Amino acid sequence: MTDRTGPDFSVSPFAGAPEARFEPAPSDGVLPENFFSTSNLPTYVRVQGNWLMPDRPRMDCVIVRRASGIEAVEPRRVKRGDLVAVGLAENGTEGIVVYAVGFMGGHSANEFRFMSTEVSRERPVNYEDLARRLEDERRSGGYLIWVPGPALVHSRARADFEWFIRNGYVQAVLAGNAVAVHDIEAAIFGTTLGMTNTGHPTEGGHGLHMRAINKVMAAGSIDAAVKSGLIKTGIMHALVTGGVPFVLTGSIRDDGPLPGVISEMSAAQDAMREFTVKATGAIFIATALHAIAVGNMLPAFHTHRGKTEPLMTICVDQTEFIVNKLRDRGTHQAYGVVTNAQDFMHVLRLYVEKCRQS
Amino acid sequence: MTDRTGPDFSVSPFAGAPEARFEPAPSDGVLPENFFSTSNLPTYVRVQGNWLMPDRPRMDCVIVRRASGIEAVEPRRVKRGDLVAVGLAENGTEGIVVYAVGFMGGHSANEFRFMSTEVSRERPVNYEDLARRLEDERRSGGYLIWVPGPALVHSRARADFEWFIRNGYVQAVLAGNAVAVHDIEAAIFGTTLGMTNTGHPTEGGHGLHMRAINKVMAAGSIDAAVKSGLIKTGIMHALVTGGVPFVLTGSIRDDGPLPGVISEMSAAQDAMREFTVKATGAIFIATALHAIAVGNMLPAFHTHRGKTEPLMTICVDQTEFIVNKLRDRGTHQAYGVVTNAQDFMHVLRLYVEKCRQS
Amino acid sequence: MTDRTGPDFSVSPFAGAPEARFEPAPSDGVLPENFFSTSNLPTYVRVQGNWLMPDRPRMDCVIVRRASGIEAVEPRRVKRGDLVAVGLAENGTEGIVVYAVGFMGGHSANEFRFMSTEVSRERPVNYEDLARRLEDERRSGGYLIWVPGPALVHSRARADFEWFIRNGYVQAVLAGNAVAVHDIEAAIFGTTLGMTNTGHPTEGGHGLHMRAINKVMAAGSIDAAVKSGLIKTGIMHALVTGGVPFVLTGSIRDDGPLPGVISEMSAAQDAMREFTVKATGAIFIATALHAIAVGNMLPAFHTHRGKTEPLMTICVDQTEFIVNKLRDRGTHQAYGVVTNAQDFMHVLRLYVEKCRQS
Amino acid sequence: MTDRTGPDFSVSPFAGAPEARFEPAPSDGVLPENFFSTSNLPTYVRVQGNWLMPDRPRMDCVIVRRASGIEAVEPRRVKRGDLVAVGLAENGTEGIVVYAVGFMGGHSANEFRFMSTEVSRERPVNYEDLARRLEDERRSGGYLIWVPGPALVHSRARADFEWFIRNGYVQAVLAGNAVAVHDIEAAIFGTTLGMTNTGHPTEGGHGLHMRAINKVMAAGSIDAAVKSGLIKTGIMHALVTGGVPFVLTGSIRDDGPLPGVISEMSAAQDAMREFTVKATGAIFIATALHAIAVGNMLPAFHTHRGKTEPLMTICVDQTEFIVNKLRDRGTHQAYGVVTNAQDFMHVLRLYVEKCRQS
Repeated sequence: MTDRTGPDFSVSPFAGAPEARFEPAPSDGVLPENFFSTSNLPTYVRVQGNWLMPDRPRMDCVIVRRASGIEAVEPRRVKRGDLVAVGLAENGTEGIVVYAVGFMGGHSANEFRFMSTEVSRERPVNYEDLARRLEDERRSGGYLIWVPGPALVHSRARADFEWFIRNGYVQAVLAGNAVAVHDIEAAIFGTTLGMTNTGHPTEGGHGLHMRAINKVMAAGSIDAAVKSGLIKTGIMHALVTGGVPFVLTGSIRDDGPLPGVISEMSAAQDAMREFTVKATGAIFIATALHAIAVGNMLPAFHTHRGKTEPLMTICVDQTEFIVNKLRDRGTHQAYGVVTNAQDFMHVLRLYVEKCRQS
Repeated sequence: MTDRTGPDFSVSPFAGAPEARFEPAPSDGVLPENFFSTSNLPTYVRVQGNWLMPDRPRMDCVIVRRASGIEAVEPRRVKRGDLVAVGLAENGTEGIVVYAVGFMGGHSANEFRFMSTEVSRERPVNYEDLARRLEDERRSGGYLIWVPGPALVHSRARADFEWFIRNGYVQAVLAGNAVAVHDIEAAIFGTTLGMTNTGHPTEGGHGLHMRAINKVMAAGSIDAAVKSGLIKTGIMHALVTGGVPFVLTGSIRDDGPLPGVISEMSAAQDAMREFTVKATGAIFIATALHAIAVGNMLPAFHTHRGKTEPLMTICVDQTEFIVNKLRDRGTHQAYGVVTNAQDFMHVLRLYVEKCRQS
Repeated sequence: MTDRTGPDFSVSPFAGAPEARFEPAPSDGVLPENFFSTSNLPTYVRVQGNWLMPDRPRMDCVIVRRASGIEAVEPRRVKRGDLVAVGLAENGTEGIVVYAVGFMGGHSANEFRFMSTEVSRERPVNYEDLARRLEDERRSGGYLIWVPGPALVHSRARADFEWFIRNGYVQAVLAGNAVAVHDIEAAIFGTTLGMTNTGHPTEGGHGLHMRAINKVMAAGSIDAAVKSGLIKTGIMHALVTGGVPFVLTGSIRDDGPLPGVISEMSAAQDAMREFTVKATGAIFIATALHAIAVGNMLPAFHTHRGKTEPLMTICVDQTEFIVNKLRDRGTHQAYGVVTNAQDFMHVLRLYVEKCRQS
Repeated sequence: MTDRTGPDFSVSPFAGAPEARFEPAPSDGVLPENFFSTSNLPTYVRVQGNWLMPDRPRMDCVIVRRASGIEAVEPRRVKRGDLVAVGLAENGTEGIVVYAVGFMGGHSANEFRFMSTEVSRERPVNYEDLARRLEDERRSGGYLIWVPGPALVHSRARADFEWFIRNGYVQAVLAGNAVAVHDIEAAIFGTTLGMTNTGHPTEGGHGLHMRAINKVMAAGSIDAAVKSGLIKTGIMHALVTGGVPFVLTGSIRDDGPLPGVISEMSAAQDAMREFTVKATGAIFIATALHAIAVGNMLPAFHTHRGKTEPLMTICVDQTEFIVNKLRDRGTHQAYGVVTNAQDFMHVLRLYVEKCRQS
């Protein structure tokens, strides 16, 4: 706010504006139709040729005309017969101007609104739209990269992810050692980090992920472990048997790592990038490190269908933080979904199944 | 850890324990079956009559016997032929003792485990179990109190909540003014706080909740607004038409409030308590104020079926914080579900529908 | 992105742009000064009269000219002598255009940046600036309303808040019953909810807040309890003895309430509003209900110094959620600080003390 | 709760218990001294030789004796002369038993309490205690490993961390490439990810971290860049000039990486472990990946001073999540501090400075 003198009333939206209209309240606490509902922004009302600001300004009020001037009043305090300003326009055409210059970063009138934060747990997730986009990509030969974190496996979304893999919605998976370790522990022992899929700990469970890794080490590779029947279910099984490519990359927190995990980081980035350059879309689920890493590699657009299109990016996390972090690192196009990985996968699958049949 | 002298090796679990067994690793990086997997707790290994602690202790390692002693070694660093300790027991019966006195709050051996935090987004939600409990309560004449926050309405779980109300899973609803305001805004205008159910803002949307309140004020009551046809869908409609009792309580952040909202707080607590004393179970969804308030009123048990039983308490929130806060205020029995309200309601309904038919 | 044909190269910023310049890399992995650093947005490079998009686009790369065209390359993969595009401008004046139309919501070139999220735990808090604003308000006779939540008392920021009250930075306090209950429990028993100020539980501690309330009930009022010497320290003591006005409002989760708490919600709002209409600034700390309630009452501006100025609003919370929620309810001007209430108060006090002496 | 028949009243704590005592309330809403304050657990009161459970049980109430029995009543509803149960004991010695078997996991009476969650933003941080521990470690020749995340640099705690390094509280630093990149960007350009230390973006800022890396690449090493005067301030400068060892490890999200970063993950773990085996304490600040990685390597104890002692582990993060995750991965001994990295460093330094002088 650098304006120290107030707006210039000789020009638009002020010049030529009509008088504001006032109508009496029909009963105590009941407002006339089309009452003007206040925001918290500077507001000017045309009364007898003058532009007045209401006394006691606040939002979610009405403007009442008193003998002494005008006042912002809570609807519950309006009495029958009080004169209440009416009109929906905030641009002066009905005698009321919301003049936000300096208060809304240059936005103009009628722009005040709630729920302007782009990523929020309080926004509804449009699953129909997400499902439609996935189905469209599948039908049009798109290339969808999935980037899951280990919570996807912890939390029983494993079967749903298998369904997406087996039904053509997954063209490549980029993940860390832990996703494969948990998935294989689940395939061999029925647990993840020693916890059953109903959330209970098992006796001696804390070593099971180490035993799972050891069995794959003995088999020689994940591929061999699938082919020998050691791994009979799950994400890695679906990827290997379905011929869907995957890149497993290492980190300093890894146990093992499993055979096949790329543990040199430049080589790992190079391997991932061979897939990001093909992508028409990407889905990040419950991962911070991989979401940022792959997000950094993905352009905001792709040209794989002969024109410059936005590259669909969906980021699912339990809090707003990761999605905003992805945006803060430059991935502005990310569509954020703030929910639990397990529930997301289950609900999305239901919507995609419906969409697939239509 | 006040023990400055180390454990007393002359008594259990040390006295009489056998020598630990070691087996050679079959290949580089591959461990013998039944290798002992280390934790991060003090560990003693019986070697040639002595109790040794491994050098370089850490978890997720194996214990290798060298000429010079024993050492915790990462599996990837084990060479073919290295002698690796085997055994699963941590209580000395196989020559290895995990002696955690002073490190685990008195817990004993074989108790080290992962995922011990009780409420976590990384734990799977056991929807089958939740659905079964709801169905059991319905069939046995239980009295379930639902305590929803406004995010339930923001986020399209409204239709799912209606289903629960209409199908006998809801005996009372305790909520704030905002839940009813958003629900009625949705019923009349199709928006909540001016945002459509696909998450988009509408022109002039910021005043719609005020217009919704005004229409109910003009009708005289929520009941009258349902009966006149002003409110044709939603939570309040289902409650009124289904004769399910509800208490709407006020707060300092309310707009309106709607007619019927109890705005004196002692009266509000008294009204709520008439329902909490009947409860056999309670479900809190996406609410902080009401969860704490009702949680404070609910005993950890009930005696409505002639014996002292736990009072089932389910608390759904986007973060672990509210559930832990509820526990911190004394509601230790709360089963926490860390997810989005919309997804919770949708998935729970699917499981209850299945359960209902079985 | 509705542009299916690509940009119009016959107009600005393309028309008349010079050729892009390329310089050889001095060594493997080392770039020439002033290399062009890529973003993830569509980028066009002027090469031999044509506008080329680099192959394999991604951000944080350089653009290397090959015999076959141009390519986005990670700096670590650049070899000595590779021709690397140079220039900082993204508007065509050096032969490179970042053409983000449809990708950045209308923002223009050179606008891609990191850390665009306005509220984030990863942004530095500018305590000098906050302290300066508080000091300026004090010196210029501003009217600062403080709205603290109970975590302020739980967490030993109590003494720091007392300091602000006693030194002229607090013109009114709007809070709930719980703030006063915890503060008085601390004054009488040295605990809050039975926990000492070093975070340890006390024997029988769970009833201490009830005993504190009872002692004030017996005294008749908070004022009487201060005057009788029952309450010798803390926030309420500082307010009463300093003559700083406060409004304590009730909620459905209250114990007690204490005498003087306004438990009828319309009366409570009316009482609070008598202070919000005077405010030149507001500080919300660790409160959700009160932050939203008071935020709803505060205009984005005030006119108390004869011109329309922004009303300074500072919102301190442990997560980004509350600040964003406040914005989503219309308080766009809130300056968010994501931290712990205790640490905020302590650090802010240090900076204000410094500022006070200057 | 498997007990379907109720407790056995013929044994302790019931057998031999006296009658409960009741005293009249001195005024409306005022309780007798030593009133019994209820919890939400099953409670039995000895009245005329019988063990009665109060009607309408809830916590934060008193037990009132009526002609018809006993009832849990909110203090505000107590009338002058009502007979209120008195006594503090919950073990029967004053005629009242809180019998929680089956409700509190085996805990006994007088154990109900608030704030039992171990890690919470609502617990006070005991900075005196933390400072004392750091000072004790310094004086006794302890070996403290610091594990910072990049938010430490983003958020101006850089100068405070330098202070700790220069004053003997840091024996080794284990961190990722990003910490060094941001620190060096700050040293050379005064920004981190293009944002100034007051939180404002700079023109062309998005490439500055790439330019910082390039300058170090040209210098050949971080060491050379410090010695040449390119890097004149900050964390890396303090480490290099103070001869404090550090390990920088790579990840898939790295830009660069800087020379000296270990990018092969097994080598990186091996390098880190040479320091974790020496540690007597560890401090994790605002890091997830490194906290889990180093946490996995650290035993819960050390024997470096000739006896088995707990290994002090302090974990600072903005939310409870990381600390709980660390515990869920086995680091049960972590002392969690839920706050902003910048504020933590600043306040801790102040307390350590005080402690140092004492």
